[in-house]
Amino acid sequence: MLIVMTPTATDDDIRAVCARVAELGFTAHRIPGDAQPAVCITDNDGSVAEEKFCNMAGVADCVSITRPYKLVSREAKARSTIVDVDGVPVGDGSLAIIGGPCAIESREQAMAAAEVVAQSGARFFRGGAFKPRTSPYSFQGLKQKGLDILAEVRSQFDLRIVTEVKDVETLNDVAAVADVLQIGARNMQNYSLLEAAGRQRKPVLLKRGISATLQELFMSAEYLLSLGNYNVILCERGIRTFETMTRNTFDLSAVVMIKHHSHLPVIADPSHGVGIDWAVPPLARAAVVAGADGVMVETHPQPDEALSDGQQAMAPDVYLQLVEEMNALASACAPVRR
Amino acid sequence: MLIVMTPTATDDDIRAVCARVAELGFTAHRIPGDAQPAVCITDNDGSVAEEKFCNMAGVADCVSITRPYKLVSREAKARSTIVDVDGVPVGDGSLAIIGGPCAIESREQAMAAAEVVAQSGARFFRGGAFKPRTSPYSFQGLKQKGLDILAEVRSQFDLRIVTEVKDVETLNDVAAVADVLQIGARNMQNYSLLEAAGRQRKPVLLKRGISATLQELFMSAEYLLSLGNYNVILCERGIRTFETMTRNTFDLSAVVMIKHHSHLPVIADPSHGVGIDWAVPPLARAAVVAGADGVMVETHPQPDEALSDGQQAMAPDVYLQLVEEMNALASACAPVRR
Amino acid sequence: MLIVMTPTATDDDIRAVCARVAELGFTAHRIPGDAQPAVCITDNDGSVAEEKFCNMAGVADCVSITRPYKLVSREAKARSTIVDVDGVPVGDGSLAIIGGPCAIESREQAMAAAEVVAQSGARFFRGGAFKPRTSPYSFQGLKQKGLDILAEVRSQFDLRIVTEVKDVETLNDVAAVADVLQIGARNMQNYSLLEAAGRQRKPVLLKRGISATLQELFMSAEYLLSLGNYNVILCERGIRTFETMTRNTFDLSAVVMIKHHSHLPVIADPSHGVGIDWAVPPLARAAVVAGADGVMVETHPQPDEALSDGQQAMAPDVYLQLVEEMNALASACAPVRR
Amino acid sequence: MLIVMTPTATDDDIRAVCARVAELGFTAHRIPGDAQPAVCITDNDGSVAEEKFCNMAGVADCVSITRPYKLVSREAKARSTIVDVDGVPVGDGSLAIIGGPCAIESREQAMAAAEVVAQSGARFFRGGAFKPRTSPYSFQGLKQKGLDILAEVRSQFDLRIVTEVKDVETLNDVAAVADVLQIGARNMQNYSLLEAAGRQRKPVLLKRGISATLQELFMSAEYLLSLGNYNVILCERGIRTFETMTRNTFDLSAVVMIKHHSHLPVIADPSHGVGIDWAVPPLARAAVVAGADGVMVETHPQPDEALSDGQQAMAPDVYLQLVEEMNALASACAPVRR
Repeated sequence: MLIVMTPTATDDDIRAVCARVAELGFTAHRIPGDAQPAVCITDNDGSVAEEKFCNMAGVADCVSITRPYKLVSREAKARSTIVDVDGVPVGDGSLAIIGGPCAIESREQAMAAAEVVAQSGARFFRGGAFKPRTSPYSFQGLKQKGLDILAEVRSQFDLRIVTEVKDVETLNDVAAVADVLQIGARNMQNYSLLEAAGRQRKPVLLKRGISATLQELFMSAEYLLSLGNYNVILCERGIRTFETMTRNTFDLSAVVMIKHHSHLPVIADPSHGVGIDWAVPPLARAAVVAGADGVMVETHPQPDEALSDGQQAMAPDVYLQLVEEMNALASACAPVRR
Repeated sequence: MLIVMTPTATDDDIRAVCARVAELGFTAHRIPGDAQPAVCITDNDGSVAEEKFCNMAGVADCVSITRPYKLVSREAKARSTIVDVDGVPVGDGSLAIIGGPCAIESREQAMAAAEVVAQSGARFFRGGAFKPRTSPYSFQGLKQKGLDILAEVRSQFDLRIVTEVKDVETLNDVAAVADVLQIGARNMQNYSLLEAAGRQRKPVLLKRGISATLQELFMSAEYLLSLGNYNVILCERGIRTFETMTRNTFDLSAVVMIKHHSHLPVIADPSHGVGIDWAVPPLARAAVVAGADGVMVETHPQPDEALSDGQQAMAPDVYLQLVEEMNALASACAPVRR
Repeated sequence: MLIVMTPTATDDDIRAVCARVAELGFTAHRIPGDAQPAVCITDNDGSVAEEKFCNMAGVADCVSITRPYKLVSREAKARSTIVDVDGVPVGDGSLAIIGGPCAIESREQAMAAAEVVAQSGARFFRGGAFKPRTSPYSFQGLKQKGLDILAEVRSQFDLRIVTEVKDVETLNDVAAVADVLQIGARNMQNYSLLEAAGRQRKPVLLKRGISATLQELFMSAEYLLSLGNYNVILCERGIRTFETMTRNTFDLSAVVMIKHHSHLPVIADPSHGVGIDWAVPPLARAAVVAGADGVMVETHPQPDEALSDGQQAMAPDVYLQLVEEMNALASACAPVRR
Repeated sequence: MLIVMTPTATDDDIRAVCARVAELGFTAHRIPGDAQPAVCITDNDGSVAEEKFCNMAGVADCVSITRPYKLVSREAKARSTIVDVDGVPVGDGSLAIIGGPCAIESREQAMAAAEVVAQSGARFFRGGAFKPRTSPYSFQGLKQKGLDILAEVRSQFDLRIVTEVKDVETLNDVAAVADVLQIGARNMQNYSLLEAAGRQRKPVLLKRGISATLQELFMSAEYLLSLGNYNVILCERGIRTFETMTRNTFDLSAVVMIKHHSHLPVIADPSHGVGIDWAVPPLARAAVVAGADGVMVETHPQPDEALSDGQQAMAPDVYLQLVEEMNALASACAPVRR
């Protein structure tokens, strides 16, 4: 249930509501950043009696939340969330572009890629130091050495770092370098990792699992928000279907559904979605006009020599032209991109 | 195998090649409309000896076609096919917009919808007279009466008619009214219907089956082309996945793959793809910038009273605004839409 | 709605109920073969007033049918349907075994296969004369010549013929030879074909479409029953998923669900389900103990030389041993196979 | 590559081969328990020169392994692996039955369930102390208290404990009680957890991910084996498809494929596969005759009051009858169950 406060409700009013929620044995969440202050109740089995709250000072309304996801839903928070990534906003109507290679392979490769990404005007650099791989015999990332290289990228370019965290053990090390902690598709339902990421406050980019329904994606995000971390960005990166001509099936309607049902920003990752370099630009453009808050694309100084996912990384010139096209479309579609 | 002729090859040269193919017991197809004349050989088991052709007059080259789909592939015909729909081209770089209701329900409804579609500047009107329905107890369309109404729409507005044909028995009746024969998703592998549609020459809009791979879609189109009907338009309309928040999963990468691997034009149908009226505009815009040759969208004078699929039909004002947006994007993206 | 008659209701009572249904503008269906006589009403929008019927002579009860499928459901008919195939029952608790090649390729091949099938004690012979194929260049069956061979098999062996009908045009020709008309997966939603098969009375084996939900399978069967043909056998033959190690994913739970929700008999086709000869026996055995009324398996005198689907056809000795195993399991599980 | 030793090869011979592998910078794995001693080489990029080994003492043959999974494959080890669970074998041709509730809810519930499981003659008791749940607001298990209860079950009954481990942090605590560590479907690609489980030696039951291909399941198992833990049991528990009438689609062909391509034992979990109590028995019987080394089924003293997955738990009497049926079938099918 959502307890909506009047615009003039005092901090004391809100604290009193939270205290009453706690007395009843439930959990109170103050919703940050919406037009009107509000408190969301979770952990309640079934319905909470409205009359316990409706006459309290500063309470405007009590509204039932009809979805299994609560804090994530637009029912709980109508206004879109803007995630502040060390001064760069995601979700404010601008287009966040995240470029870079699949994995950090060497200092040279990372610097060359970062050069291109900075040149494009993108504000975010991606690159994996810890790579979850299907085979134990595949390249698993440079690990700590990769983090060190990312730190160097960060210090030399005005780029925010997006990199994957794959377990609780290395979360602090990754968070020491990352501006955005990426939780990958395979870990979308790794609840111990979600809980650890929810307990800290760095922004989290949560990727949709390869066969996760959107409701399950929302439920996983709910783990993060329910532990107090509202700095969550969702990411569509393709789902598994019967089609084999593409690596995955890029589900662009997910962007539309997420914007409608949740206040959280959403990023599209057409590189993983389709898995073929020449097919990325049209889908990246499509994501922009469909309303994605950002687009994550892979670029590599020399795609043919990439240690992972080379066939989906764009060469620098293709990447630079795509960023130009995306920015032009974002401007042209500003009114419909909310 | 594809036998590519020199630009100066005479009609007699080509006929001689076709005769040699027939002598060998195979089938020869003259590829229409490509830069250089060419003859494609099908029905051959395995490889045909190149030396049977390489010394013939006017023969430039013999090229193996590596895909199971032959005439449909860009290997057989590099230049994009432009389908002429009674004077209106599809596939020439312009944006073909097909608007109208799911089903023809009455003369009044059809005329009101056609009025809106014509006003939008779209050149194509859709509406089903024969409706394949999951339940035998659902509205199955007005049948011949629906065709009569479509004929009236055609005579009163400058609109080309796109309507579904569901069996061989009614093909001639539908073709008497339709400018484009739509073969629906459920009939994509109804080979008897494909053969009948391949033997006549009206343009065919072939929808991807609900769980058809793109290769299967190409193979079904191959039935049409192999019988001589090259006036084929492919259509992505959403595939079946595990996701339940949308009616189907609209696979936009299909548009990109079709443009790459085939010379045939492709239309996107986001209305069936997503199945929710408010989600159609962002996906329709996306289809335009991803390179679709056209977009098919449902509009109904009164969506709430539609006899089928009302929840995915846009109200007239929403439809009119969307067409404006799509046309603006098509102009803005003209260079990348080839 | 289902109008259940008393055991002592007369034929006149039932006729009076049907007449009342017709007066109301709905369609009445006398349910054949259940413990108590009953009339099912279809074509009604929403609810029919019970009071129109509850006081009529011979009426015991009026029961709402809660599913979208009506005549197919166990709500309409609690007792399992037994389909009589020219004297051989399917659905009576015995195990119907359907053996034979994918396609009829020659008189010799068909006779050799039939010899093996007859020797196994199976009562049904399968073999396609009309083969729907993904590629227009693949072997499409011997057509009428294939039917002639099947007629000869029928005359020489005590075997019932199961063969596919792929369109309305050839239905009569196929029905002249077939004891069971098979409607294949690709045609499960070919409603014109379903209507034609529903209007005649030969038993129909309806295969589940490659991505059809069970509810859709029931709805397609409803087309047959609603036109008066209750001689319907359903068939699970594998569905399309992301898994690539098997041809399809054989959904054995479909057998269990069909037996629970419908009174129609169900056959399992593990040959198409898994698509690999050595994997067929364990899945065929599994189908028997899971309660399938029959099993359809492919056998070919020389699998390596089959013109279609050779990799899933069992050699004669493997087939013969499997039939023995299945019969032993059917006896052992008689109590749980109802 | 697999280096097969002669039956008379000495331990020194094998050590010499391993040393040569290490010299070349690769990893050597001595394959345990096969008919002939063998050493598998992994971590090699591309091919290893055979001539480096073929003349060494005791080397019989050098065989390339054609699959991406190496140690898991039957190519590396032809003889089926028997996992010893504290004296109870899994994979030796007998039928391992694992019964118990989804979650441990209380001491009373666990003891009552264990009573029934012991009475049935099953040797394994399942029950979750740590429950990964889609919603953060759902019951997450009794955690350490649940482990304590499991320890009590273990001390009072002659039952081996199978319980889920969901993260590295709690692995030691779980391993202190569990005889088999279950890694759940959502964690099948949690590589940090796989690595931790691979480094210890307790048997691991690895469940197939909800949309994992069998090859991916094998690759995840490869993580365990490559770290030296060969005590791995695979588990099919249903995959995600478009079908909604069942909770998941129970893929029985997975059992057949696993037995064919891998030497590891495989358990079927029809309770999660189908998710409906009355549908479990036919599928459990089917798993037995299809060759599963064991079956895991849920039973609860009072299914209606279960805190999780109650709709798929069998009541005690149904469970007891099913175990009897399964044992009878296992005996009847002993020859084909290898």
